Amino acid sequence: MSTPTNQWSIGIDLGGTSLRVGLFDSELNRIDSHRISTRVADGPEAVIGDMAGCIRKLLGAASARISLSGIGIGSPGPLNLQTGMLGLLPNFPGWDGFPLRDCLVEATGLPVYLECDSNAAAIAEWKLGAGRTAQVDSLAMITLGTGVGSGIILQGRIWHGMVGMGGEVGHISVDRDGPECPCGSRGCLELYASAAGLVRLARDQANTPSASMALKRLAERPDGFSAFELAQLSQGGDVSASRAFERLGEHLGFALAGLVNTLDLPLILIGGGVAGGWNFFATAMLDAVQQYSIVYRLQEPTQRITQEIGRHFIGAAELGPDAGLLGAALLPYLLESNGLTEVSGRNICTSRIA
Amino acid sequence: MSTPTNQWSIGIDLGGTSLRVGLFDSELNRIDSHRISTRVADGPEAVIGDMAGCIRKLLGAASARISLSGIGIGSPGPLNLQTGMLGLLPNFPGWDGFPLRDCLVEATGLPVYLECDSNAAAIAEWKLGAGRTAQVDSLAMITLGTGVGSGIILQGRIWHGMVGMGGEVGHISVDRDGPECPCGSRGCLELYASAAGLVRLARDQANTPSASMALKRLAERPDGFSAFELAQLSQGGDVSASRAFERLGEHLGFALAGLVNTLDLPLILIGGGVAGGWNFFATAMLDAVQQYSIVYRLQEPTQRITQEIGRHFIGAAELGPDAGLLGAALLPYLLESNGLTEVSGRNICTSRIA
Repeated sequence: MSTPTNQWSIGIDLGGTSLRVGLFDSELNRIDSHRISTRVADGPEAVIGDMAGCIRKLLGAASARISLSGIGIGSPGPLNLQTGMLGLLPNFPGWDGFPLRDCLVEATGLPVYLECDSNAAAIAEWKLGAGRTAQVDSLAMITLGTGVGSGIILQGRIWHGMVGMGGEVGHISVDRDGPECPCGSRGCLELYASAAGLVRLARDQANTPSASMALKRLAERPDGFSAFELAQLSQGGDVSASRAFERLGEHLGFALAGLVNTLDLPLILIGGGVAGGWNFFATAMLDAVQQYSIVYRLQEPTQRITQEIGRHFIGAAELGPDAGLLGAALLPYLLESNGLTEVSGRNICTSRIA
Repeated sequence: MSTPTNQWSIGIDLGGTSLRVGLFDSELNRIDSHRISTRVADGPEAVIGDMAGCIRKLLGAASARISLSGIGIGSPGPLNLQTGMLGLLPNFPGWDGFPLRDCLVEATGLPVYLECDSNAAAIAEWKLGAGRTAQVDSLAMITLGTGVGSGIILQGRIWHGMVGMGGEVGHISVDRDGPECPCGSRGCLELYASAAGLVRLARDQANTPSASMALKRLAERPDGFSAFELAQLSQGGDVSASRAFERLGEHLGFALAGLVNTLDLPLILIGGGVAGGWNFFATAMLDAVQQYSIVYRLQEPTQRITQEIGRHFIGAAELGPDAGLLGAALLPYLLESNGLTEVSGRNICTSRIA
């Protein structure tokens, strides 16, 4: 019988495009990781097989002496954390109701700790990123990517809400008469602050009389354009492209103002790929927060500081695209040792099969 | 030395119009209470004197054998719970920065437990009202009165936020281009869902071509009219008056949708005087929540039930105008015995002065 002095963990970040699996030591140093395409169309069992294959490779390459605390997996939501099953995932057709946690337990024989991907990212920033820097135990992290995800940590606990859907900030409406959202509402933040939302705002901007030629050309491209290309245009000084980012910032700031008024959190982090355009939208975002949040305004110092108005800090996330994977790897530690089981009591399946 | 088998408490509900002081036994039965006008213009020291006078009368009339756990006081916010001092209270000119807690300790020699009035009301509903009925430990209570207050209880703890301003739901903007709010924002919920907001909506309604004669007459009254009078008109079947309530419901529901998306709470309660018009605004409110909250919608059963769609319950508060006073009387018990000190660690002053 071995009594390990420390335990390693495996993190899995299940995305609609790519699947990342990493092995981490007890200090959360990444020993090794694999990134492969997510074979969404081949069905969930195939992808579980891919996960198990990556884990075998990682463990095979590592020392045989390691002891594993388990596998943490961050998955797109909605999830049922109680049953460990997927909900209706828009980007995973045919995966509805798949018992992700149990199947991964079965395929690996290891305990599996499941969380929404946006919560996993928030956990990583809390423990290893901007939250550690700021030394706070309450924060919200908004991830601007394909969609707009969010994770809320309140006094050292992931806030799951009643049915595991606490923190759907991406579907807060910022314009009740705005465009229809696939979720069924109108004017959801996601329609403005996701990568696709930003592209839409840029197209609107390209249709204004004062639009730059460069933006018009980008918008007229038959194969479309990406948020990254828009950021490059802004970086080059294109005012029209920057205006699209500013519009994103105005919508995001309006939503954050509601969040600040509701929860008065000391730290709000903006992450995800679109947050790479931080310099182009941060000022407009902070202006909107200031405009629409009395709670934020009351903490405002006379001297305005970029990124930080008053004691409410709203800043860019620190960990970049690794946040989701790191947060997943943290789950086995946190959920067992840090009182988080108390909160959820639901997102763990430690039953070992074979 | 006496060893009391139970301890009574005193609750104080400090309002801009009236001051209520009650004596409660350990089962929270009200033994006696006084209600007097709040002498706002005479300054805070005078009102502290009134509080102490009421307490003396209550204790004088009660058995000499009782033991007191302390005084709980619900005060309008913003408050600094750390220092026990008032912030800038719009309806209390000249009271800015008054050390309410310390002065009450000094005047009475009793421990004083301070909370925002809206949090006190939420505590009462949680422990003694609809929250007890529903057996939940997380809820939000929105109080529609002179202003729109809110209190949020998360897993059995009052959510204070970073600087004691968690739960300013009344200042969430529901229309970014809406009218200016005295708080500095635009379109705050309070402008639509407070008593004054309702009257404003009714005036708008009276100016529409289809407005009823009765509503027009009410709106033209030189001395104005009250939310209560509008409710009476609705009760009598006046469609125009009811339309004003519906408009209130639409705005309130839009704000609640954001709250549900953010926190996924099992219970949201609507209290305060304006909530007396529940029957006139509830349907419009619930329709708006359903329209704008995916989280709410996902819990919706096929069979629509009034007041309750799915497992998220949004209902009328149960305790009526007593909620604030009852919640205040609960503070000495809760803050010492129920782990709430852990949360705030700030809103208690137990130092006894002579």
